[in-house]
Amino acid sequence: MTAYEPIYPTPGWPDKMTFSPAVRAGEFLYISGMTAIDDNHEIVGFGDIAEQTRQIFRQMGPILEAVGAGYGNIVETTDYFLTLDGYRETADVRREFFQGPPYPAATGVLVAGLIRKDALIEIKAVARLDG
Amino acid sequence: MTAYEPIYPTPGWPDKMTFSPAVRAGEFLYISGMTAIDDNHEIVGFGDIAEQTRQIFRQMGPILEAVGAGYGNIVETTDYFLTLDGYRETADVRREFFQGPPYPAATGVLVAGLIRKDALIEIKAVARLDG
Amino acid sequence: MTAYEPIYPTPGWPDKMTFSPAVRAGEFLYISGMTAIDDNHEIVGFGDIAEQTRQIFRQMGPILEAVGAGYGNIVETTDYFLTLDGYRETADVRREFFQGPPYPAATGVLVAGLIRKDALIEIKAVARLDG
Repeated sequence: MTAYEPIYPTPGWPDKMTFSPAVRAGEFLYISGMTAIDDNHEIVGFGDIAEQTRQIFRQMGPILEAVGAGYGNIVETTDYFLTLDGYRETADVRREFFQGPPYPAATGVLVAGLIRKDALIEIKAVARLDG
Repeated sequence: MTAYEPIYPTPGWPDKMTFSPAVRAGEFLYISGMTAIDDNHEIVGFGDIAEQTRQIFRQMGPILEAVGAGYGNIVETTDYFLTLDGYRETADVRREFFQGPPYPAATGVLVAGLIRKDALIEIKAVARLDG
Repeated sequence: MTAYEPIYPTPGWPDKMTFSPAVRAGEFLYISGMTAIDDNHEIVGFGDIAEQTRQIFRQMGPILEAVGAGYGNIVETTDYFLTLDGYRETADVRREFFQGPPYPAATGVLVAGLIRKDALIEIKAVARLDG
């Protein structure tokens, strides 16, 4: 018994994974740190941090939809950058999805590395449901 | 329609920004990662990580006040350090603002870089309202 | 007056500390970033990131118990790695404690350094109570 409901945007999430893409916990949805991948779990947007950012937010769409929510439910994002080249373009991508103001809270830092090879950015998020 | 209320501590938050300084979401307030800046958005406390930490907590004051809260509402901070020189002094600054025990939960790590030039530390926080 | 209740898994948490091991805030428990330490606050599992991960999750046990919760209440973890050597083994350690699926949400990044000397990994967590 867990205090949360795991959210799988599509069927076929591998049982060997030791985390859920997202979990619903009370009125909040915790989305795991995501990198830009395609349906085969391969990195897309090589060398293009803005496109990787766009793809990550696209991937959040079905997760949010699975709980009856949308981008307006995201209250906070944390961005882990491997490089700050292209940083301003990643901010522009936020406009496409959040269409603010208002915008969610955000934190962004440069890390020493990301677990996924060829990933330039990883983003985690918290959403509020029933909003 | 968003599931949160953006919190602007002072008038004049630029529309071009793609994040809010903080957002209220249910009983929680998510404060974006902050660096030490003055009213003109220029970094202060050059080379002095304790003073930058103090300034960041000062900046959180009006955000908390805007929702009828104070430092005792902060439940968690995450500190991103560019250097660990002066680390102990940043802990002393926490005493000034939180006047504990008790103290909030805290996490601190050394990052490879901060987005804001000359920033030595960035701090994000979560507060609980109606506490 | 604080909007949270500090949680001390054992008596004797030093008053000089400027953070709590964890705090209960409404239906959520925020656990501070933890490194692998023994009862004397000395690092254990030198050079063995999997053992350090195991020890960190062990340390979370009494914190969860103190609020009537268990590992199934953890909704999100954030792992800060000093090295990715042994990364896969840290995922195996999650199986031991969470016994999923389902699993919590998770985020992991490589940082430039950890505050605690000889620590190879630091983990913070959020748990939901009353689940």
